[in-house]
Amino acid sequence: MKKNETILLGHGSGGKMTHDLIDQLFARYFDNPILRQQSDSAILDLGTGKLAFTTDSFVVDPVFFPGGNIGHLAVAGTVNDLAVSGAVPLYLSAGFILEEGFPMESLEIIVRSMAEEAKKAGISIVTGDTKVVNRGQCDKLFINTSGIGRLEPEYEHISSGINIRPGDKIIINGSIGDHGMAIMSARNELKITTKIESDCACLNHLISESIMGCRQIRFMRDATRGGLGTVVAEIVKGKSFGLKIDESKLQIRENVRGLCEMLGFDPLYVANEGKVVIVAGADEAGGLLKRMKQHPLGAEASIIGEITSDHQGIAWLETVIGGKRIIDMLSGNQLPRIC
Amino acid sequence: MKKNETILLGHGSGGKMTHDLIDQLFARYFDNPILRQQSDSAILDLGTGKLAFTTDSFVVDPVFFPGGNIGHLAVAGTVNDLAVSGAVPLYLSAGFILEEGFPMESLEIIVRSMAEEAKKAGISIVTGDTKVVNRGQCDKLFINTSGIGRLEPEYEHISSGINIRPGDKIIINGSIGDHGMAIMSARNELKITTKIESDCACLNHLISESIMGCRQIRFMRDATRGGLGTVVAEIVKGKSFGLKIDESKLQIRENVRGLCEMLGFDPLYVANEGKVVIVAGADEAGGLLKRMKQHPLGAEASIIGEITSDHQGIAWLETVIGGKRIIDMLSGNQLPRIC
Repeated sequence: MKKNETILLGHGSGGKMTHDLIDQLFARYFDNPILRQQSDSAILDLGTGKLAFTTDSFVVDPVFFPGGNIGHLAVAGTVNDLAVSGAVPLYLSAGFILEEGFPMESLEIIVRSMAEEAKKAGISIVTGDTKVVNRGQCDKLFINTSGIGRLEPEYEHISSGINIRPGDKIIINGSIGDHGMAIMSARNELKITTKIESDCACLNHLISESIMGCRQIRFMRDATRGGLGTVVAEIVKGKSFGLKIDESKLQIRENVRGLCEMLGFDPLYVANEGKVVIVAGADEAGGLLKRMKQHPLGAEASIIGEITSDHQGIAWLETVIGGKRIIDMLSGNQLPRIC
Repeated sequence: MKKNETILLGHGSGGKMTHDLIDQLFARYFDNPILRQQSDSAILDLGTGKLAFTTDSFVVDPVFFPGGNIGHLAVAGTVNDLAVSGAVPLYLSAGFILEEGFPMESLEIIVRSMAEEAKKAGISIVTGDTKVVNRGQCDKLFINTSGIGRLEPEYEHISSGINIRPGDKIIINGSIGDHGMAIMSARNELKITTKIESDCACLNHLISESIMGCRQIRFMRDATRGGLGTVVAEIVKGKSFGLKIDESKLQIRENVRGLCEMLGFDPLYVANEGKVVIVAGADEAGGLLKRMKQHPLGAEASIIGEITSDHQGIAWLETVIGGKRIIDMLSGNQLPRIC
């Protein structure tokens, strides 16, 4: 730690500064073999079976936004962290930090959303905690959800990505940037009328019904904070392969693209809350895509790139005009309190 | 919900208002058989073995206090919730919500405390999350810890208290009110020189080494928010037995008693962070006490009361002058942000 260093918004970006903070502080002090995996969920071996365990705190501002609210997001976010690890999400905890004066009616809407989302996902919220802080000591409410899922041994490689190899295809289940731009458009300071909806959704059924049958699933991750760009940069970090994204294959809704351009954001790094990035063997990628398209949350799925044997350790965008742009981890903070 | 009702500080007290909020909102919407147990940890049956699962968010103010800090507390609090359920704590998650501008040096001290406490308790912090909010949108930092423990089927009755019966003894491992009064004395607004230290400690070794051998452990709970008073009120709620606490047996340190009197607090309802309340069969209570006294965290253990067949559903204090005082759940909020 440098003297007089303080926490900056970028430390919560999900990008490079978050990674540095984890490496220099959390991973250093908490060090143990499970934490060292540094994946979305910790894989626990209880002797009698493997579990995935994950935690996420949600501080999204505003708490209600087009397409969802903080409660909806808190359930989907943790369910997705388990599901992309190859686990079957089973149980969630819910910890609330509430600001004195928060309307009970709003809290009820949020809690109801959580219950509905949990029901849809087929999981149970089994334990909780409530803290209240004085007015002005937190902004409305924060929710932590931690989750437990059952992990079959055959899927244990998914979160590590250890089986990724050149030729593998990169698949995503639809457009990028929707969640982040929905939040931006909902913020009071932006009086914009574009109707952008968050893609916030639980992906566990899409994953279990359409994806897990594929024998060549090498890796999955949900592209949340830091966006698709950060996920692909993480996939290649320190690896002996490269990763190419074909810009012409990326789906970005017109209104999302417009707002990004207006505000100077790169959609590659804008948060999603219902998008899974999959690395799958080339032989099965076509069949996988077909199955995904039959699911409502996979209808717009497409192959957007591939793992290469050249450009080791580098992810890049092959632009529509034929150029190459390196995709690095997000540095600094693009959008605070996006989730 | 009443119209225009808002969240009040009392909803986070751990007393009656917290219980009402849980019943009317969380339990109502999240309803499922596991949540209905309403104990410190949820008991999960994964087919291959039982697990205890618990969550707690920590918002203590100030973050550094005599005898500990928020990190120390966040590990001990969740370890204790698992241990009092009869489980062996194994894994913790750690979710940080940090205020922009929080000194990195302070964060490092807190993270180091968490690591030290985890090591002492023999558990691993295996997964985490970091969010940063703008300056003024949270007060310094909040930490959520969720935990998983292994529960042997023979101890499953402990968190429900289903085996409690008249004649059973009430044991606590030492003095009450230390944590709450340490926080009060540490708050800037109180310029008091009494040196009161929090009792913040992981109780899992005391419990596994000294308590779990006893075949007649009927119930355990850590007396945190709401204090000893709220725990005993919860034990008898809706039950066909009563509970008597002998005031003369309660240990309250001189400086704690003094500060309580000065500020108008009842030590019975002041938070502890290293105290376990045990209900044990009368035949084994003496032997249990002896074993507890051999452990540093049990050196001051004593029998403070018993379960009675009369006064069903009521907990009361037999005062030193021979009077009776009903011990109800804490109503309203005694001390905000105590944990």
